[in-house]
Amino acid sequence: MKIGIVGGGQLARMMVLAGYSLGHEFLILDPNERASAGQVAPLILGNFGDPERLSALAERVDVVTFDLENVPAEVLRQVTAQRLYPPVDALETCQDRLNEKTLFDKLGIGVAGYRAVNELDELFTAVNELGLPLVLKTRRLGYDGRGQRVLRESADIEPAWQALRGVPLLAEQFVPFDAEVSIIGVRSDQGEIRTYPLTLNEHRQGILRTSVAPAPVDTALEAVACEQLERVMTHFDYVGVLTIEYFVKDGRLLANEMAPRVHNSGHWTIEGAVTSQFENHLRAVAGLPLGSVSVRRPSAMINFIGTMPAPQEILGISGAHLHDYGKSARQGRKLGHCTVTGVNDAERDERLAQVLALVSDQE
Amino acid sequence: MKIGIVGGGQLARMMVLAGYSLGHEFLILDPNERASAGQVAPLILGNFGDPERLSALAERVDVVTFDLENVPAEVLRQVTAQRLYPPVDALETCQDRLNEKTLFDKLGIGVAGYRAVNELDELFTAVNELGLPLVLKTRRLGYDGRGQRVLRESADIEPAWQALRGVPLLAEQFVPFDAEVSIIGVRSDQGEIRTYPLTLNEHRQGILRTSVAPAPVDTALEAVACEQLERVMTHFDYVGVLTIEYFVKDGRLLANEMAPRVHNSGHWTIEGAVTSQFENHLRAVAGLPLGSVSVRRPSAMINFIGTMPAPQEILGISGAHLHDYGKSARQGRKLGHCTVTGVNDAERDERLAQVLALVSDQE
Repeated sequence: MKIGIVGGGQLARMMVLAGYSLGHEFLILDPNERASAGQVAPLILGNFGDPERLSALAERVDVVTFDLENVPAEVLRQVTAQRLYPPVDALETCQDRLNEKTLFDKLGIGVAGYRAVNELDELFTAVNELGLPLVLKTRRLGYDGRGQRVLRESADIEPAWQALRGVPLLAEQFVPFDAEVSIIGVRSDQGEIRTYPLTLNEHRQGILRTSVAPAPVDTALEAVACEQLERVMTHFDYVGVLTIEYFVKDGRLLANEMAPRVHNSGHWTIEGAVTSQFENHLRAVAGLPLGSVSVRRPSAMINFIGTMPAPQEILGISGAHLHDYGKSARQGRKLGHCTVTGVNDAERDERLAQVLALVSDQE
Repeated sequence: MKIGIVGGGQLARMMVLAGYSLGHEFLILDPNERASAGQVAPLILGNFGDPERLSALAERVDVVTFDLENVPAEVLRQVTAQRLYPPVDALETCQDRLNEKTLFDKLGIGVAGYRAVNELDELFTAVNELGLPLVLKTRRLGYDGRGQRVLRESADIEPAWQALRGVPLLAEQFVPFDAEVSIIGVRSDQGEIRTYPLTLNEHRQGILRTSVAPAPVDTALEAVACEQLERVMTHFDYVGVLTIEYFVKDGRLLANEMAPRVHNSGHWTIEGAVTSQFENHLRAVAGLPLGSVSVRRPSAMINFIGTMPAPQEILGISGAHLHDYGKSARQGRKLGHCTVTGVNDAERDERLAQVLALVSDQE
């Protein structure tokens, strides 16, 4: 089967490397001729939103999927493909934080309080109704460069408004969370669902830094997250991998956002699970039976951001697996990751500490 | 690092798929434009014995390695490469069954009795000295099309001679073995050696059919095999993966042959060991630290020969991993393999039986 991937980043690259073994061929659409996935599979050069290039991709493959949310849903919807998964409706919902929160609400999935903000008046109302601190952010992805503002006191309201005004905004209660976790699952076109264990995540400056799986948290939380992920998947008649990211606060889950794709917090599944998220995504979109999501070994993933450590340093650590994305170095850019596994949590944690010690030297 | 591989079969393909994660780039030399590895990495079209093509490969890479024994050693020796591993001396020894046996003998590694046979007289002498049954075979690889002859009684001597005469031959005692096993190890350019557990192999019509690892045999045998592999590696100042295949007879190991490369009986290491033979070969030839050879789960590998089963059938078996080499079907050709793992031997064996049941239907 020939699979077209819109977006040629590291997620597409890892899909390709998982998919060759299944006998799949690949074709990538990306505007960058040195795209990470374009180094390991044929590439069509073009923008994600270019209907002609998207059609050129779709015509040459049996299935179209994507490795990023940044594909205009209305363009994707016009593409005639034999199979196009995950569903564009799910993609579109994820592109708007308000629609995402509204869906979580509708499906009975707990979220922090939120309000749409289009006028300064509405921001004042949000502050009154939700209280401070609040986070003010843009509703749509793609404006991320503007960042977001935390409003801690009344004096912060007007400056935040001035900084972000002009596009649809969302105000959310600030959650002083105890932990961040994510749940990753896969649904087949037959409606079968399999879910990996909860992963514990740590972000730094908004970028995922480490993931530890299975997450050392109350197992009751995992059951809740699985059930919520299932609700979202069923809602969309979803096919492929879906991720929900949560805050944990006072022993309760609050859904923060979801991603209609394989996810950075699932990279540990390459070595740590019987079937990786990448292979399971491909199995799902290609109509093949899903693979086991059982854990092989306790795992931890460390992102390499901005600089890559020397491979001989990482590979000198027992049980460490290197993933170099073939990207040129740039500040804040994810260049690769490393997964460590251990026969038990203690061994895993010791190896994680060894990798972190190496990486901190370079920061 | 850019790695050139002479030979673009499935062994090269699996090296490439393991090596991209390490950040390596690849270039393949193969005469077949649809070569298995050429589907996943850039390809130079050319014969293995063509000095110009070999030089063209060597000039464009940092390391040269090979995925088959069939490269003329004298041509390879003239190639100027920064790094060329495994050593050509080891390759050359493996290309001649007499030299191989002689080396085993010299290093104190037990083999079945053997004699060089260049004249009919020498064949009669071999029969007298070694007894019947005997196996008569060509000394050099590449004549495999002629097959080999088993001599069970005196009347078989002259017909066998007539069938094989004209090239240097070897007569060996026929070993009615109890089992076949192989040992696979890797040596770094620093002289560090790591060895995977013994693998139990079953051949059918001379082609490997299944491997089971760790082999359910006396662990004392493993210690012997490791030590013998180490002797061969040290002898050649070897760098890369080396395999020795043995017969087990009456609780004793008899070395049958060796291969200076990753080996079909080590495919299970992709899922079953912490670091696969492919990654460890690349780590060694690229001068990187070796990876752990610990077993993650009991594993079994089943070759798909001549026909590929439907992927949905294989992937419907829990714990089954499919490897499709992208080759067109042809009788007797290895088209792919499947590895099953289990939490224990019983689960592994049950899954192996499921795969074999599927495959036998198609034979």
